[in-house]
Amino acid sequence: MTPKNAFYAQSGGVTAVINASACGLIETARKHSDRIGNVYAGRNGIIGALTEDLIDTSQESDEAIAALRNTPSGAFGSCRYKLKSLEENRREYERLIEVFKAHDIGYFFYNGGGDSADTCHKVSQLSEKLGYPIQAIHVPKTVDNDLPVTDNCPGFGSVAKYIAVSTREASFDVASMYKTSTKVFVLEVMGRHAGWIAAAGGLAADADHDLPILILFPEIVFDQAAFIAKVKEKIDQYGYCSIVVSEGVKGPDGKFLSDQGLRDAFGHAQLGGVAPVVANIIKNELGLKYHWAVADYLQRAARHIASRTDVEQAYALGRAAVELALEGKNAIMPAIVRTSDEPYAWEIGHANLADVANVEKMMPDNFITEDGFGITDECRRYLAPLIQGEDYPSYKNGLPRYITLKNVAVPKKLGAGFDL
Amino acid sequence: MTPKNAFYAQSGGVTAVINASACGLIETARKHSDRIGNVYAGRNGIIGALTEDLIDTSQESDEAIAALRNTPSGAFGSCRYKLKSLEENRREYERLIEVFKAHDIGYFFYNGGGDSADTCHKVSQLSEKLGYPIQAIHVPKTVDNDLPVTDNCPGFGSVAKYIAVSTREASFDVASMYKTSTKVFVLEVMGRHAGWIAAAGGLAADADHDLPILILFPEIVFDQAAFIAKVKEKIDQYGYCSIVVSEGVKGPDGKFLSDQGLRDAFGHAQLGGVAPVVANIIKNELGLKYHWAVADYLQRAARHIASRTDVEQAYALGRAAVELALEGKNAIMPAIVRTSDEPYAWEIGHANLADVANVEKMMPDNFITEDGFGITDECRRYLAPLIQGEDYPSYKNGLPRYITLKNVAVPKKLGAGFDL
Repeated sequence: MTPKNAFYAQSGGVTAVINASACGLIETARKHSDRIGNVYAGRNGIIGALTEDLIDTSQESDEAIAALRNTPSGAFGSCRYKLKSLEENRREYERLIEVFKAHDIGYFFYNGGGDSADTCHKVSQLSEKLGYPIQAIHVPKTVDNDLPVTDNCPGFGSVAKYIAVSTREASFDVASMYKTSTKVFVLEVMGRHAGWIAAAGGLAADADHDLPILILFPEIVFDQAAFIAKVKEKIDQYGYCSIVVSEGVKGPDGKFLSDQGLRDAFGHAQLGGVAPVVANIIKNELGLKYHWAVADYLQRAARHIASRTDVEQAYALGRAAVELALEGKNAIMPAIVRTSDEPYAWEIGHANLADVANVEKMMPDNFITEDGFGITDECRRYLAPLIQGEDYPSYKNGLPRYITLKNVAVPKKLGAGFDL
Repeated sequence: MTPKNAFYAQSGGVTAVINASACGLIETARKHSDRIGNVYAGRNGIIGALTEDLIDTSQESDEAIAALRNTPSGAFGSCRYKLKSLEENRREYERLIEVFKAHDIGYFFYNGGGDSADTCHKVSQLSEKLGYPIQAIHVPKTVDNDLPVTDNCPGFGSVAKYIAVSTREASFDVASMYKTSTKVFVLEVMGRHAGWIAAAGGLAADADHDLPILILFPEIVFDQAAFIAKVKEKIDQYGYCSIVVSEGVKGPDGKFLSDQGLRDAFGHAQLGGVAPVVANIIKNELGLKYHWAVADYLQRAARHIASRTDVEQAYALGRAAVELALEGKNAIMPAIVRTSDEPYAWEIGHANLADVANVEKMMPDNFITEDGFGITDECRRYLAPLIQGEDYPSYKNGLPRYITLKNVAVPKKLGAGFDL
């Protein structure tokens, strides 16, 4: 019996290590070619499945697949596209089955965050609801670290490391300059709902590096008076201060602080980040010289400073997805289980997608200090292992070598296209 | 005869490698303790000399001084403070002599950019003009890469590497997402007068990494129509595009593009970066989804991704400053002399401060492509060697270990203070 082929797709915002999961998954599938045929990747995620735009990963050499481990971004293209429920858009699911059938696909691997866990869960029910036999396995990925059940999410550890390192470095910079120049540095980081990434800024300070760092979490309503008092306190003590602000910080009116209705000289609305807004508050209230940075994509693409722990976990989860498939599992997600904080130890477990889909894991209350501007020892204990270890890519001409795959299309078998 | 002491100070914006120069300088001075006594560092730069706030570097262990090589920022504190001319402010120079005399200082090492070369030049003339025997040597440092005579400036190579790496990584990210999400990424980099740092963004693309990158140089007046046409061309060809914009870009009116008179909801002026301005132009003219980042201090503090070439040159220039002093030189600056592009080779030469002070080195015209949005092969040949090699700091708990010195004050000998 010819083994069934597998479909793999990357979904949502990409990370420094999502390709490491792809690497683990494809390398493991190649070892089991008796039971898994080709791995077909969706070009630009699930859109590739709907439009029958599949990539034949068997056209890539073992070296190319191995290089994925060290390459940030989504090598097959990702997308932001959420499937509606079967009831709302039956047409999409029927199309998926049509494409899966045409290409003899029996395994569906979906590499993404909360939304894609939900999509994967819906696909896992196709056997039951539409009579098409398929095993759907979700591979977790999100810099937001907001998936439940798994102790942490691949992608997050590397962003956390980038933010912790950058905050330490910039704080050292300001410490040298504050006497006659910049006294406050503001760094804007990702995290619209949960403050996991902002919290990582707190790791910049430790017993050997006494740095004044304030964090603005999306979990804490911005209290300008309390914030200014805190900045003043740090300035009085250290002469300077660094502020790590989550893009998702909201004011007492429930609106994003970044959404202050900025206008240009012609009155056009201007989309600003939250960092300049916070910097402006500092200027108006305290009259201190400031600088601000917005890390944006640099933080999630920074494979050059990836966490080795994160890379290893991303790879292991890709491998585990295939192993779970070979065990006959469906509607499941391999997950990180922490077995010890210190020394840090973890193993791979799994979660039922029904328990994962549409659940967002927030920062526990006891991870934020009582004053709302710092991280607690519990938080530090949780975060610290996730940034452990370096895993440098190889360099050529002073720059990291990242792979761009050939991404050869699988010949189409269906006559009709599909309108998204 | 007791050897004369040395004064060392860091000046202006700090870099990832200015402490490597301090390391080279202090380690070399320690090897010549028969001819150079203590190295006293100015706390917060030249201000430390004026206020008799000197740091006794002999209180630091050899290990601590060695750790400076891997630590970004200015370990003794820097400042933005320019001495006026002797005619304009004789009081400052007389104070310097008073402090130098009190602490038996015969060597003045000043580590900075154009302004500090000028200050150093003035100090070098104290022997002649005010009869105080001193040798003044300037150690070049500036991320702006705008000092003349020297082939390049320590600090620049590491920023260039950071920008090239970050541009490559973010471009990979956007390449994965453009199908349904971000199509244009804008990265704002330093460089108010010269486009050296922005030019480094062009290195992100090479024969193995075909990435669409446009650069906005401060040397080229911003032409919105030409820019939009170019973005459209890249989008048509690649589907996405990255833009590296120098903070110093100016419009046809001669004003900084960043200075567009942004106002908040209350009509208060808002200091924005140029990245959101460029992003807004993209949105208004092409309606494309964008993201923007402002690297700010992260770029110049990023010791974690420093160029090994840069670190070695910074160290060598600190060492050379002491060697030139021991040769009896005055009013001089050790400089990098490039002897070959490929393979890259360099040696230490020197320049007279009279030729360095108040001269700004701009990008040659033939480094910018005719359309004004890219770098030429000549530029690539110049830049490429400067980012060669990695020089990773050591890590502890997932973060680079950076040294904070004890910075023990030298007991004051003068009764009177000094008002800056």
